[in-house]
Amino acid sequence: MTDPLRGAGRTEAIMRTTLELGQEIGYARLSIEAIAVRAGAGKHTIYRRWPSKGALFLDSLLSLHQSDLDHPDTGDIVADLRTQIRSAIDLLADPPFGPLYQALVGEAQYDPQVAAALNERFIAPQAELTVARLRKAQDQGQLSPDFDLSLAMAILSGPLYFQFLITQEPLTHEYVDRVLQALFTGMGNPS
Amino acid sequence: MTDPLRGAGRTEAIMRTTLELGQEIGYARLSIEAIAVRAGAGKHTIYRRWPSKGALFLDSLLSLHQSDLDHPDTGDIVADLRTQIRSAIDLLADPPFGPLYQALVGEAQYDPQVAAALNERFIAPQAELTVARLRKAQDQGQLSPDFDLSLAMAILSGPLYFQFLITQEPLTHEYVDRVLQALFTGMGNPS
Repeated sequence: MTDPLRGAGRTEAIMRTTLELGQEIGYARLSIEAIAVRAGAGKHTIYRRWPSKGALFLDSLLSLHQSDLDHPDTGDIVADLRTQIRSAIDLLADPPFGPLYQALVGEAQYDPQVAAALNERFIAPQAELTVARLRKAQDQGQLSPDFDLSLAMAILSGPLYFQFLITQEPLTHEYVDRVLQALFTGMGNPS
Repeated sequence: MTDPLRGAGRTEAIMRTTLELGQEIGYARLSIEAIAVRAGAGKHTIYRRWPSKGALFLDSLLSLHQSDLDHPDTGDIVADLRTQIRSAIDLLADPPFGPLYQALVGEAQYDPQVAAALNERFIAPQAELTVARLRKAQDQGQLSPDFDLSLAMAILSGPLYFQFLITQEPLTHEYVDRVLQALFTGMGNPS
């Protein structure tokens, strides 16, 4: 068969097609076959690079906005976390990213391979960047010396995922600000 | 058709069958039809009470362990939260509850009716109990007077859901204790 796209251009076309088609028909009805047809690529070409629909989908999503998730460093940890987390939720509010990411997390509850890929490709690298930024802040005395950095992702992201996946209310900048304030103040009464 | 079970006994039998069958074949392959056959009940009998598989499944899960999620009140809010959250994660560690609840949350990412039922039937009532217990602690000076009670569920449950749904590492008592300590201490440096 003919395969007019090669190398990086082909990879990009397949990922772009995956997102387009995902947006049109939803993640559940998406298939490697349909993506191959629409992208004008061979099914085996896709399977050589991605072992599953979940893996292709995850790569496609990550190709969109990775740089928006970088951690700024202005020297003010609260302001920097606010900026970074606001960017992250802006992604989720921006179709097609939000509903597609939600579908991917849904899939991760059934498919351990998708869950593992999500962690390896997205969550673990994000955790590394977050912990590095927080460690610097801790060294500068901007963070409680007792704060357990290995919990950083769970403590910071958990309240966002809870709203995104469980109550499914909209994530807003105001919510991010309130969560950060609550986390920095702490629940305990120092008096 | 014959329907030997009536009233509460029939309802219980249907819910028990739902969990048994869910455990055997997984949530995805569960159907009202199969539950009706196994329970010896009419399909319409089931649909009269539960509009969807998700609604029936949620009721069945909740029928198991609701009382384990009560909030104790010994007067020590940290100890009481520790007890309550440890009980909650013990449920998740106890098959079939954990994988079935995980499947239900997965389904909630695709089906808004399941998401709404999850919130109305489980999350909102839990939030009410949690906030009531925390409000009492706040009145007694055991909680920061600045802590925003409307965020309580997100702040307390978020880190657990993050581990349960995203990193999918086991939830342990030790993890609960570390999360509570981090939340009560707070991320900010008071010095």
